[in-house]
Amino acid sequence: MFESAEVGHAVDKKTFHRAEETLRARLLDAQRHLRVQGRFPVLLLISGVDGAGKSETLAQLYEWMDARYLSTIAFVSPTDEERERPYMWRYWRALPPRGRTGAFAGSWYSTPIAQRIAGDMSRVQLDKRLDEINRFEAMLVNEGALLLKFWLHLTRSGQKRRLRQLESDPRTAWRVTKESWARTRTYDALQDVAGHVLRLSNTAWAPWSIVDGTDDHYRHLRVGKELLAALEKRLAEKVAKKRVFAPPVNRPADDRNVLTALDLGKKLPEKKYELQLAKWQGRLAELARHKAFAGRSLVLVFEGMDAAGKGGAIRRLTAALDPRQFQVVPIAGPSEEERAQPYLWRFWRHLPRKRHVTIFDRSWYGRVLVERIEGYCSEADWLRAYAEINDFEHELVSAGIIVLKFWLQIDQQEQLRRFKGREKVEHKRFKLTPDDWRNRDKWTDYQSAAVDMIDRTSTGNAPWIVVPANDKNFARVQVARDVVKYVEAALGR
Amino acid sequence: MFESAEVGHAVDKKTFHRAEETLRARLLDAQRHLRVQGRFPVLLLISGVDGAGKSETLAQLYEWMDARYLSTIAFVSPTDEERERPYMWRYWRALPPRGRTGAFAGSWYSTPIAQRIAGDMSRVQLDKRLDEINRFEAMLVNEGALLLKFWLHLTRSGQKRRLRQLESDPRTAWRVTKESWARTRTYDALQDVAGHVLRLSNTAWAPWSIVDGTDDHYRHLRVGKELLAALEKRLAEKVAKKRVFAPPVNRPADDRNVLTALDLGKKLPEKKYELQLAKWQGRLAELARHKAFAGRSLVLVFEGMDAAGKGGAIRRLTAALDPRQFQVVPIAGPSEEERAQPYLWRFWRHLPRKRHVTIFDRSWYGRVLVERIEGYCSEADWLRAYAEINDFEHELVSAGIIVLKFWLQIDQQEQLRRFKGREKVEHKRFKLTPDDWRNRDKWTDYQSAAVDMIDRTSTGNAPWIVVPANDKNFARVQVARDVVKYVEAALGR
Repeated sequence: MFESAEVGHAVDKKTFHRAEETLRARLLDAQRHLRVQGRFPVLLLISGVDGAGKSETLAQLYEWMDARYLSTIAFVSPTDEERERPYMWRYWRALPPRGRTGAFAGSWYSTPIAQRIAGDMSRVQLDKRLDEINRFEAMLVNEGALLLKFWLHLTRSGQKRRLRQLESDPRTAWRVTKESWARTRTYDALQDVAGHVLRLSNTAWAPWSIVDGTDDHYRHLRVGKELLAALEKRLAEKVAKKRVFAPPVNRPADDRNVLTALDLGKKLPEKKYELQLAKWQGRLAELARHKAFAGRSLVLVFEGMDAAGKGGAIRRLTAALDPRQFQVVPIAGPSEEERAQPYLWRFWRHLPRKRHVTIFDRSWYGRVLVERIEGYCSEADWLRAYAEINDFEHELVSAGIIVLKFWLQIDQQEQLRRFKGREKVEHKRFKLTPDDWRNRDKWTDYQSAAVDMIDRTSTGNAPWIVVPANDKNFARVQVARDVVKYVEAALGR
Repeated sequence: MFESAEVGHAVDKKTFHRAEETLRARLLDAQRHLRVQGRFPVLLLISGVDGAGKSETLAQLYEWMDARYLSTIAFVSPTDEERERPYMWRYWRALPPRGRTGAFAGSWYSTPIAQRIAGDMSRVQLDKRLDEINRFEAMLVNEGALLLKFWLHLTRSGQKRRLRQLESDPRTAWRVTKESWARTRTYDALQDVAGHVLRLSNTAWAPWSIVDGTDDHYRHLRVGKELLAALEKRLAEKVAKKRVFAPPVNRPADDRNVLTALDLGKKLPEKKYELQLAKWQGRLAELARHKAFAGRSLVLVFEGMDAAGKGGAIRRLTAALDPRQFQVVPIAGPSEEERAQPYLWRFWRHLPRKRHVTIFDRSWYGRVLVERIEGYCSEADWLRAYAEINDFEHELVSAGIIVLKFWLQIDQQEQLRRFKGREKVEHKRFKLTPDDWRNRDKWTDYQSAAVDMIDRTSTGNAPWIVVPANDKNFARVQVARDVVKYVEAALGR
């Protein structure tokens, strides 16, 4: 793995300064194009052994580039806001938007490597994490990110020499701490773990660059030139024309599927409804303040055709919850800041803290519903979304978040009846937009997309619950009951 | 203060349900208009004594309104990310954007009241905080917010009765804690402090509504109706036409001012420059990692005409800093999410954590420079900005942030020379935009605005430093030296 970085590389001062002049001008130029185009973000991971020049390299990049559009993203121990969220949350919230460059000093690799060396993580756990990281990076790259990963290498003797050299200069002595020397004693362990990590995460879409860190000039030129080459290549690429047509929807051999198999005739008379709703609301209220829930949190997703009764079902849940504890997040078009990020970013930002509940009224499933049907994203985009969404929800569940997804199913006659009803009632009229009528015309497409979605993303840990919703009473009680049942099971009660 | 809330109010069930029906429909309608207009945010403060029905009132609002556009903003003990920022940071970051309603369960009043009762805050400190709060609320209202403050009141016997009543019902018993009873023993102290706080913060722009909390129906109708009335009134108001002309700039009796009085002939030869710069950079590097700086942070502001050398001066500072420790924030037009907030919001979000440095390349002073000159805001807006900015910086300084502001002054000939130079150099050409030539035509206006700005916002704790910048060497060294000197003084070294 590290052989090429040990053959000895050096660049003399004169060569460096000559090369630097052009490099700097071209980097600045590329950085400006990046900003003007605003098409993609650049993520630089600068990792490596102690003393191999990680911070010097970063500082050099600041010398060459425009500091206003370059951010260093450093991670120390997680803050309490971070600790209450999934492991990747802190990285998601630090992602640079399109047009900017973010240099990660420490990254999603740092903790696994450190934990593995300390023996706090088994090889199996490490490999699992690496698999998650590979999938995360694939998602970033598919979303357009230019991701460059540098590993700065030193030989064992090179590392000691380098630390002594830093110590001897009063301007750099502070960089060498007791920990730095302690880490020279785990040099072999680091090489072993890092070699393994680099091998497994050396993917086609995000390969590692292993750089000999011994000589400052060589290291800086190498990193600078690789960055420049990757930037210029990417900037010169024609903007891939997104296929903005609605792709054909799979038609199964018969009409039988999870939605058509549903008995939409189910009803609940008013009297029973009130009694049962009160019962489940009471139990939900208890659960939400139960001490077993204190270390957990809850994410609920509501999807369904227009007028399926999502809002009403949600209100019956929130009535049982403390307003300080929940947040209802309506999902419409993304904001400007959200459009500058991977499509899942805007959902990450709303993830609940411990003991909190976030209810999404429509969700990330828009990617495989409206975006698919209306052709807002390419076929390749929504096809990969199923796996990305499963990965995303897997991370939530791994972090102790309870994830539950409801599809409220009505039929076309019921929708029409509700649309007409809305037209009559003053404070409901606004709920009806021309979009609603348009979407209605694509009923079959939406139903097929929903079936695909349920089939591909209903997992044991984050299941879809399909609710017959022609009768509002029945649907509301089922939702309340299933939330209670599922949360109780998750809390082991 | 509380007299009217003690005369006894009650509404029977039947009257309540009749009134509720219209109220709900109109609230929903108003809420929708609010969202569609997107002109202003609604801030509801719901405070009061324990047991007076704060959470019940909030829950009632959720019953009536659309939960998707209503957020409850609750505050428990500050997170470590909040503790490392000024007191108001947590409130700024929770502000609802235009078009939305945010209900504050606990607010900027909670901590001062609790601290005063516990004796942790003197009367003088309390009054100072109230003054700051009044100014903050004035800013919010001037920025367009509809701010409604409710204080839910109970008599002493009423409070005890209410707590016993809550305790006797298994569904509400959990709301009554040991602390609730403990607080009944400080009833008089709370009445005393709250009376004082309410009196002093009962401003024309954000008056308190004191509501008898005894009867649920009465309380809910009262709050709901007041909210509805305020919303409907505000929504019906004609959109105040902003005066979008550039107001006349004050012309003083002579040409002498802080800018013209400057000796722009100051120069530093290359050799001396390099030596001195290295010296100050070295001291800055030391300071930034000194333990005295561990509990502090630094905000630097750079303003000046185009091509004044802001970027170059900034790069000479960042070269001395650890990339993990600083962030350069370039200020151009606000993003969509930023436009939905008070104009200072986008600067609050970039405030540094402890031991960190944020450098603003242009800043909140855009309000009294470009926005004033180009007429992007009304005269009233930029006139009030001086005081708002002073308040903002005062909060930063009070929280231990070191604030330093540089105006780099060049003359018109020098600017022209630099513009022409930029046209010649490949990687600098992009720096020149048609805007730059346009701004150049308004040189005198910008200079006058800068003089006004410096005169009105240079305070002892957050001074402006005017730097003769015709010679880049001289300017860069002065900036580096002044940062060092000022930070050393602030750290008491």
